[in-house]
Amino acid sequence: MQKKVEVGILGATGMVGQHFVKFLQGHPWFEITWLGASDRSAGKPYAEATSWRLDGVMPENVARLVVQDSKTVNGAPRLLFSAMDASVATEIERAFAQAGHVVVSNSRNHRMEPDVPLLVPEINPDHLNLIPIQQRKRGWKGQIATNPNCSTVVLTMALAPLQKFGIEKVIVTTMQAISGAGYPGVASMDINANVIPFIGGEEEKMEQETQKILGTLKGDQIAPLEATVSAHCNRVPVVDGHTITVSVGLREKPSEADILEALDKFRPIPQQRGLPSAPRKPVVYMEENNRPQPRRDVERERGMAVFVGRLRRCPVLDFKFVALGHNTVRGAAGAAVLNAELMYSEGLLD
Amino acid sequence: MQKKVEVGILGATGMVGQHFVKFLQGHPWFEITWLGASDRSAGKPYAEATSWRLDGVMPENVARLVVQDSKTVNGAPRLLFSAMDASVATEIERAFAQAGHVVVSNSRNHRMEPDVPLLVPEINPDHLNLIPIQQRKRGWKGQIATNPNCSTVVLTMALAPLQKFGIEKVIVTTMQAISGAGYPGVASMDINANVIPFIGGEEEKMEQETQKILGTLKGDQIAPLEATVSAHCNRVPVVDGHTITVSVGLREKPSEADILEALDKFRPIPQQRGLPSAPRKPVVYMEENNRPQPRRDVERERGMAVFVGRLRRCPVLDFKFVALGHNTVRGAAGAAVLNAELMYSEGLLD
Amino acid sequence: MQKKVEVGILGATGMVGQHFVKFLQGHPWFEITWLGASDRSAGKPYAEATSWRLDGVMPENVARLVVQDSKTVNGAPRLLFSAMDASVATEIERAFAQAGHVVVSNSRNHRMEPDVPLLVPEINPDHLNLIPIQQRKRGWKGQIATNPNCSTVVLTMALAPLQKFGIEKVIVTTMQAISGAGYPGVASMDINANVIPFIGGEEEKMEQETQKILGTLKGDQIAPLEATVSAHCNRVPVVDGHTITVSVGLREKPSEADILEALDKFRPIPQQRGLPSAPRKPVVYMEENNRPQPRRDVERERGMAVFVGRLRRCPVLDFKFVALGHNTVRGAAGAAVLNAELMYSEGLLD
Amino acid sequence: MQKKVEVGILGATGMVGQHFVKFLQGHPWFEITWLGASDRSAGKPYAEATSWRLDGVMPENVARLVVQDSKTVNGAPRLLFSAMDASVATEIERAFAQAGHVVVSNSRNHRMEPDVPLLVPEINPDHLNLIPIQQRKRGWKGQIATNPNCSTVVLTMALAPLQKFGIEKVIVTTMQAISGAGYPGVASMDINANVIPFIGGEEEKMEQETQKILGTLKGDQIAPLEATVSAHCNRVPVVDGHTITVSVGLREKPSEADILEALDKFRPIPQQRGLPSAPRKPVVYMEENNRPQPRRDVERERGMAVFVGRLRRCPVLDFKFVALGHNTVRGAAGAAVLNAELMYSEGLLD
Repeated sequence: MQKKVEVGILGATGMVGQHFVKFLQGHPWFEITWLGASDRSAGKPYAEATSWRLDGVMPENVARLVVQDSKTVNGAPRLLFSAMDASVATEIERAFAQAGHVVVSNSRNHRMEPDVPLLVPEINPDHLNLIPIQQRKRGWKGQIATNPNCSTVVLTMALAPLQKFGIEKVIVTTMQAISGAGYPGVASMDINANVIPFIGGEEEKMEQETQKILGTLKGDQIAPLEATVSAHCNRVPVVDGHTITVSVGLREKPSEADILEALDKFRPIPQQRGLPSAPRKPVVYMEENNRPQPRRDVERERGMAVFVGRLRRCPVLDFKFVALGHNTVRGAAGAAVLNAELMYSEGLLD
Repeated sequence: MQKKVEVGILGATGMVGQHFVKFLQGHPWFEITWLGASDRSAGKPYAEATSWRLDGVMPENVARLVVQDSKTVNGAPRLLFSAMDASVATEIERAFAQAGHVVVSNSRNHRMEPDVPLLVPEINPDHLNLIPIQQRKRGWKGQIATNPNCSTVVLTMALAPLQKFGIEKVIVTTMQAISGAGYPGVASMDINANVIPFIGGEEEKMEQETQKILGTLKGDQIAPLEATVSAHCNRVPVVDGHTITVSVGLREKPSEADILEALDKFRPIPQQRGLPSAPRKPVVYMEENNRPQPRRDVERERGMAVFVGRLRRCPVLDFKFVALGHNTVRGAAGAAVLNAELMYSEGLLD
Repeated sequence: MQKKVEVGILGATGMVGQHFVKFLQGHPWFEITWLGASDRSAGKPYAEATSWRLDGVMPENVARLVVQDSKTVNGAPRLLFSAMDASVATEIERAFAQAGHVVVSNSRNHRMEPDVPLLVPEINPDHLNLIPIQQRKRGWKGQIATNPNCSTVVLTMALAPLQKFGIEKVIVTTMQAISGAGYPGVASMDINANVIPFIGGEEEKMEQETQKILGTLKGDQIAPLEATVSAHCNRVPVVDGHTITVSVGLREKPSEADILEALDKFRPIPQQRGLPSAPRKPVVYMEENNRPQPRRDVERERGMAVFVGRLRRCPVLDFKFVALGHNTVRGAAGAAVLNAELMYSEGLLD
Repeated sequence: MQKKVEVGILGATGMVGQHFVKFLQGHPWFEITWLGASDRSAGKPYAEATSWRLDGVMPENVARLVVQDSKTVNGAPRLLFSAMDASVATEIERAFAQAGHVVVSNSRNHRMEPDVPLLVPEINPDHLNLIPIQQRKRGWKGQIATNPNCSTVVLTMALAPLQKFGIEKVIVTTMQAISGAGYPGVASMDINANVIPFIGGEEEKMEQETQKILGTLKGDQIAPLEATVSAHCNRVPVVDGHTITVSVGLREKPSEADILEALDKFRPIPQQRGLPSAPRKPVVYMEENNRPQPRRDVERERGMAVFVGRLRRCPVLDFKFVALGHNTVRGAAGAAVLNAELMYSEGLLD
């Protein structure tokens, strides 16, 4: 067996950092050997520096690692997953890229920069061609790649197989899980037996990120998808899993059968290459009329597939359906790890 | 003080019947003197025939009334509220109308019949003109009037003030409370910490009823609103209150200020006449960016107003917003009582 | 109509302060004319200084009051309700009592001091005799009276009618609502579809406060009840209402009928005097085998009664039962207001 | 690899049956080859006869099996797990035992019969000595063994290591998950944001079963534990996992350290033999002061361990603590499978 690639986690003690630790357990290619966090945590074993908030208990091999100061670039492995808070991610991620590191980030900070791939391996693997452009432009040997917001990835994965029919208009309503807000996140007094019809910045992210992800690399930049996207974002009392309802207008006017076939045949590069974290099918269509459901379906396929159901005609646009994805896995840690797997398979980590 | 109008409730022992009993407590015009239910309950005091499922305890004055067999027309007061299950409502409501009763029904059975008003007093009080047509056509002295489905009323109340701008397209996603499914209704194993993206028949009702309610009486029938409506209906773990997100396309292209003004100035007949169950303002706009919320707002205005918030431009249609209404009050018992109040104020109960 | 007594609220902008504002709406004796909070809020209208977290909207008459600095004693009315956080209550409450004010406090800080009444008007109105002792001992003209912790009051109200049977042992398990933790309080990630079997300091409070409340004034101090009390405190995903299960050992070995009669006949001073916030019956026994329930029963009697059910033999101690009370009403704001009503009726506010 | 033992499931289409199907996936010793249900389901493939209610999707290998009529004894394998409803289990389980089958039942029907083991392999493996007595007395070659009620198993597992200190008194309050009530089980209108302080028959089961399980085989019968047990049973809005608070009186007056050591060293026969479904440690003590918690801990150790926390002195009895177990795994399907593994390891299936 080959030696594993050593990886580090920036922002390892927070909720997203914990999700990285959990998701990377038993990974066949990557092994966590370095954890970075704020200077408050630096110098302590991870077990001591971290209030573990996830189900079950902290993995023992990681518990013993001594946390490093994220502001110190020395000593970190080449590949770093960033789970940093948006308030500090910009500078620190840049510093590591500057120092030659491959920063695969879940933070929103660099997502919309023109030379940074906003990567979903099933959708736009060719956007990795921005990396040499980024390196040339920024004059660094490292690189930064990002994954989308946790709601956006559910939407774009469900839309990707429909791209060939010409997506023109999208109206989406989200019903988002509380785990999407981190910890302590949403107060129970706000969400118990309630709906909160607002999530700060979320609608803008969904509208803009979707256009970039589904956009086309032209020359040295991404031409965004020329479609209008309108999002209504809501918080509901669900633990994990963002459920979305989608109405979509399509230029080519496919039949319902055409769409089902497109979903069924969707087998992009991560599946072709058998990347370790790629689900067998990236988009799983469920026939039951009341599925997918977050509590019942979110853990299937290790949380890496997007589940679609209830495809039917929309009287206003062309079709409507419901989709579900795991916000902390496919929408965060798992997304970044799959990005790194794609980058590794492309030789970008050599 | 004038003598109150005696009223009866068909289907009094079920959940909707209980909501009628509760809502009519202390009503200034109407007094419950008759309760009808299946022959299984007939002959028993209401307290004995009924498993009270609502908050608090059964009102004492009603608890003592002896339940009658809904199949026997004799002895009931002229005005009857129908809370009957759809499986039996068609025949029984007809029998009472045939016998000269005024049946103000919450059941879905007669809603879409061309000579039956699907009445929302704030929106289409003139649809009561269908009553003489109904009486002539059916050859009966009684009458049947209906109120909409619990989700439809939230949508149509929020849209009514916008009608003058020419409603062309509506896409709505609902997040509906469990009380909308009656008792036992939704299994806790299905909805605890979950979303169910399907409610049987609900989307069709919202799409069709909206067109009838916002339609125009022409000659002796209703010309439905010429707008397309598309609904995505979901169940969420909320006790009372249906929250909906709405995107709407408007012919006249009003400004945001125009719409806010239209909502603010909306003061239709129930408010002009001060009908007892009419809320002071039928549509209340909330400025806070995270409101309305079902648990916090649903009981305001005795559950009879519809709350709207987050009005903003929609990149696909023209505007989008969120709305909330109390499904068992404004969407059921309270709606029917307000209908009866309108009918009374029009002299239809004389 | 007589002029109302002017009252102020210390800590008016927090959750407990908001509960005072809400509970005092329409009070027949008391009128809020003064609001105190931290210097951060001082000088602003209450509407501006406060994020209103309760259901519905802030009462308009209070919204306009300008908030004062709680550290400045000048200008406040004689009667003050304290909703202060425990971190600051000790000093500020003392300062106001020193300056001659009547401080009716919901804070825990002074509860266990030997010369401060821990008052439940239905149980120990004679503990008000500590007030002159307190005034003499502390050399102040003002006074401090306190109400119990929100779980303790449910337990002691249910136990009070049984005191004549000689309470010897009590084992209680609580299932406490999230509103008991204030705002933001419990993170939804901690409590959604979960139980937290720990609430810091709560078990000690229940064990000690119960002994003081049910204790006897002897000379110038309270001899605590000579009974052992053992508490297991848990948080459950309920919005309002603490439910407790109780096993109790009684010296006199009453029959079940004796106990039911004691509960039924319990009609102490607040009910005899008809204090405005006193429930008609302080302890309401429910016959149904699955009641009381927090969501269905907590709002009855304006939240001021304690509901008991399922009285039956305990194989280990003598009897067992379940009880429920409204933690933010009977366990906080309502408790303090009832205390003030008792004090007013005793002439202590003259 | 050895050929697996063929097993059948009686009552395979219900919720408990589904839990057996799920739990037995990939079992190293047992393989499902036969499914029995009512005549309504008989003749249909399992996938068609069953509304799958568990998370994820039905295992494919079982989906294809054709369901048999549970009333027909012919053709079933020797080892049968019974997930039958109590209304029919008595007769059918007897019929299969009569016909020579080994019936390992989760139903409550035969639990308290004097010649039927109420088996918890970690606690009373010697109760299997009732089997030959049962066979002789009933004149059959088959056998019936049972596992406890889902709450009882949590209590008895937590108490078992303390038996050597002489258990005298136990007061337990449960906070039970909704999955314990099957499907549709508890109505969401009853439990959403609520507590139901009653579960029919549950308290009696906990009190009686505990005495039998912890009892001693003397001659040809079980002498029940001479301790009094008092249970308060409640339903809370949790999906899986029964949490219980326990106060216990112990004759030998151990120290806290004695108890912690007893829990830590508890390593009974299933762990010694390494039975496939036995958790590494049957009772896991958690040091954190707010654990165990159902949502966070219930899935650990495949749901087969019982988690204990917060051990401390009880002012009324001797000690108190909290415990948690998975009601549909350790309290149902997993319990029965572990029973069968013990029986297999004893040669009872030969």
